[in-house]
Amino acid sequence: MKQKIKNSERIKIIPLGGLDQIGMNITAIEYEDSIIVIDCGLSFPDDDMLGIDLVIPDVTYLKENIDKVKGFVITHGHEDHIGAIPYVLKEVNVPIYATKLTIGIIDGKLKEHNMLNLVKRKIVRYGQSINLGCFRIEFIRTNHSIVDAAALAIFTPAGVLVHTGDFKIDYTPVFGDAIDLTRFGELGKKGVLALMCDSTNVLRPGFTMSEKTIGRTFDHIFAENTENRIIIATFASNVDRVQQIINSAYKYGRKVIVEGRSMVNIINIASELGYIKIPENTLIDIDMMKNYADKQIVLVTTGSQGESMAALSRMAASIHKKVTIKPGDAVILSSSPIPGNEKAVARVINELSMKGANVIHEDTHVSGHACQEEIKLIYSLVKPKYAIPVHGEYRHLKVHGELAQSMGVPKENVVIMESGDVLSIGEEGTDIIDRVPAGGVLVDGLGVGDVGNIVLRDRQNLAENGILIVVMTLEKYSNTLLSGPDIVTRGFVYVRESENLIEEAKGVVSEALEECLSHRVSDWGKIKMVVKDSLSEYLWKKMKRSPMILPIIMEVS
Amino acid sequence: MKQKIKNSERIKIIPLGGLDQIGMNITAIEYEDSIIVIDCGLSFPDDDMLGIDLVIPDVTYLKENIDKVKGFVITHGHEDHIGAIPYVLKEVNVPIYATKLTIGIIDGKLKEHNMLNLVKRKIVRYGQSINLGCFRIEFIRTNHSIVDAAALAIFTPAGVLVHTGDFKIDYTPVFGDAIDLTRFGELGKKGVLALMCDSTNVLRPGFTMSEKTIGRTFDHIFAENTENRIIIATFASNVDRVQQIINSAYKYGRKVIVEGRSMVNIINIASELGYIKIPENTLIDIDMMKNYADKQIVLVTTGSQGESMAALSRMAASIHKKVTIKPGDAVILSSSPIPGNEKAVARVINELSMKGANVIHEDTHVSGHACQEEIKLIYSLVKPKYAIPVHGEYRHLKVHGELAQSMGVPKENVVIMESGDVLSIGEEGTDIIDRVPAGGVLVDGLGVGDVGNIVLRDRQNLAENGILIVVMTLEKYSNTLLSGPDIVTRGFVYVRESENLIEEAKGVVSEALEECLSHRVSDWGKIKMVVKDSLSEYLWKKMKRSPMILPIIMEVS
Repeated sequence: MKQKIKNSERIKIIPLGGLDQIGMNITAIEYEDSIIVIDCGLSFPDDDMLGIDLVIPDVTYLKENIDKVKGFVITHGHEDHIGAIPYVLKEVNVPIYATKLTIGIIDGKLKEHNMLNLVKRKIVRYGQSINLGCFRIEFIRTNHSIVDAAALAIFTPAGVLVHTGDFKIDYTPVFGDAIDLTRFGELGKKGVLALMCDSTNVLRPGFTMSEKTIGRTFDHIFAENTENRIIIATFASNVDRVQQIINSAYKYGRKVIVEGRSMVNIINIASELGYIKIPENTLIDIDMMKNYADKQIVLVTTGSQGESMAALSRMAASIHKKVTIKPGDAVILSSSPIPGNEKAVARVINELSMKGANVIHEDTHVSGHACQEEIKLIYSLVKPKYAIPVHGEYRHLKVHGELAQSMGVPKENVVIMESGDVLSIGEEGTDIIDRVPAGGVLVDGLGVGDVGNIVLRDRQNLAENGILIVVMTLEKYSNTLLSGPDIVTRGFVYVRESENLIEEAKGVVSEALEECLSHRVSDWGKIKMVVKDSLSEYLWKKMKRSPMILPIIMEVS
Repeated sequence: MKQKIKNSERIKIIPLGGLDQIGMNITAIEYEDSIIVIDCGLSFPDDDMLGIDLVIPDVTYLKENIDKVKGFVITHGHEDHIGAIPYVLKEVNVPIYATKLTIGIIDGKLKEHNMLNLVKRKIVRYGQSINLGCFRIEFIRTNHSIVDAAALAIFTPAGVLVHTGDFKIDYTPVFGDAIDLTRFGELGKKGVLALMCDSTNVLRPGFTMSEKTIGRTFDHIFAENTENRIIIATFASNVDRVQQIINSAYKYGRKVIVEGRSMVNIINIASELGYIKIPENTLIDIDMMKNYADKQIVLVTTGSQGESMAALSRMAASIHKKVTIKPGDAVILSSSPIPGNEKAVARVINELSMKGANVIHEDTHVSGHACQEEIKLIYSLVKPKYAIPVHGEYRHLKVHGELAQSMGVPKENVVIMESGDVLSIGEEGTDIIDRVPAGGVLVDGLGVGDVGNIVLRDRQNLAENGILIVVMTLEKYSNTLLSGPDIVTRGFVYVRESENLIEEAKGVVSEALEECLSHRVSDWGKIKMVVKDSLSEYLWKKMKRSPMILPIIMEVS
């Protein structure tokens, strides 16, 4: 392995996103007074983050070092790489650098947040380099499930870092050229300090199929369904997939309707910027659908993951305003369920099937991420001294580390980082030298960070057991009971059928209260505790349940 | 197709379980004054059934026709076929008929509910028939992921029904013999009115592998991990799987420890009844583990589905009292994630990997259900006049119906039923003639059916948005405000950091209240509504959130 740079400089690498590094991709690279940040993604809430809309990264470290931060370099336009920009840039307002479509999508986001005039963006071409502080960053062409994805070569005083972004190797991409393998090889020849490579599909052997294979699948489906309406759901951001649907539609003489807000947005941006080619008179408005026969129509829509608010789910549940599923409709779900979405996808398929639709789900999707043989190819070209697997759960990073070893990276040069770790890395070694605040900040409505663990624990408890509120009014000083105790419940039991239970519960509270007052307990905290404990005990004995119990004492003088 | 019975009699078939017929398998067969019931299963709550422990079938129809009900015939001992017995038999107490191990497992359940002396159980051998009212029911040997599974041939005045139960075809079962294909063929030769056949794996082409193949996999894993502790998680009820672990352990000189309550229970029952053979001195107590080296130990445990309270999850999360995961431990998850459990399984794998365990998950499981070629084999033997696909979501039943057609069942003779449908069926045709109450009854703690849609909707709302309680005390008659308004929240925001918000909210309430009182509004319902609406509007404007708002007025005279 050739290594041209030989010195004792070290840089810091600091992942600030989620522990599992899926969603919230954001990594700081630091050297002396310069920090650059790779990507700025959000993640969607876990099942236990009740009521949370989205999760953004904790950028305390960037705020504390705001003077050093030179800019964000963004690899591609997926939510888990750009979604937190409107939130983070409010606090860390530095320029953003990315390829043309990526900037186009970011602009759309900034517009929605009325921030377009507040943030500097700069388009970078493949092969072009930008200088940020002491770093030079080169954007390298890759392939992915969104057009204009880039890998980054980051030239630092300690050596060259290569970050693949999310990628696959597609020798026959739908738009543009294949990944610039030569450039990866040139960098490898000159010597690369560390490779930060996508781990998403590292558990899968072999090679991810070309996006173009799906075009052939669509052609077959169009050929077999000449009389029926065709509805295809896919990821809004997969412009190439939509392009292939349009190609098939054109070939088979169908009009294309695009439905679903996020898909309309992205297709407009991609179309304006020249990333999608729509033949004239092919796209029609959904309101024009009634003027065409079923066999003249293909509907492209969101909702392939069973998302309950997306267009396809609404069609399946008969609550879509403009599309009614009919027997014979051919409905294609052109995606694989993301882990956690399996049941939702199955529900949508069941609902569509019950309405007589012919649902096609198998072999209608290819991944946007590299499988084992592709990852090996990148290692064989880049020949990094260190391997820092990124973009995966721990089990992926671990297997990726083993794969790197099989490609000649010594075991001690494989670094599996956790969120917030500060890795010091140079030719002469690596160390985790510090830990900084990192992880997720919860967003609920307009509130950023005002819902935390205690609130979530309460929500969990409320969700599982409901709440039982006990209210009573006491006279000031004398503590005489003036009214109550009253009991109000929500999410506990059908009250109409449980009147006796509530009456008995009131009795339990009254008794506990009398006991307190007769013993001249005047501390309301104590009274509340006694009421709560006795009611809790009663309910557990009676029905093996533990609702949240909330005693409230009102004071009247 | 030969059909010996030719008459105009009709019977009724009534599925009473869940709409998707997964979980809660329970089907009534009725002719004049006789009803028999096939299986009596429960299901586990969906994600939106917050706080619900389990779901049992609505047996209103059986209760209303209790005099007709002759007994339950049970196909096998899985929860989705027997789990509701302790609940349903409290209301419909009739005898239960099943094979030996199935009765053994049912007895265990009845014991837990102190009902063993209250319910009649009768063991039926394969090939044996029982007479219940006007029905004769023959139990036929099948294979499944639990031993002693049976199909049922139900001889009725309208013809023969064949119900496969859950089955696969295993030519080399671990215990007992292969499925009695000859008997299926004999029945087919004499003429079968309808086949009710398992649809679980109907989307999968080919043939399910023999359980025995997993034994060879275990042998390989034991051969490769001679120095490490081996931990294998699988379904508690898969006695054959546990037998094979014991076989491998014995062969490689390891002691076996069984951990997890449900697994200990089933192994005890299976062992007592002779369904599992444990060589002497092989099984040791978990407390003896410390006396053995890692390489002498194999731990068999529950939790292969990532269930948060099961033994493996507790080990992974470092909260298991007796087992601490160590680097080098070989941990085998011998099951495939049931849809919906994927994320939980991934979490457990990540946690185990972080502790240095070597997690083996691929190719360590075979299904207990028939794939397409097996289902076709059954159709080719049974040659039913009608096909009534069972045990699947709608998408499965639909594909199963197409498969039945490919096997010669006319399209009009494929019947896809919904829960509660009353199917009238005879040689001369089928009709859905009625609909009866059916579906799920929710069990929460000791409460059966006291949590319904309104309560669940409240729980969902509480879970996502939290609750904001507004309390005020008014003087009787005068409606003078004596104390409050006070605001208490749970699951809403961090109160410490939101004091201003709460103060402002109180102001909004006070204003609304004054407005009401100054206009001499004395209807408390009206006052509550005004308070709620103004607060709701304020919170949505201020923070785009809609917590549940609960105004409570206390009255003091």
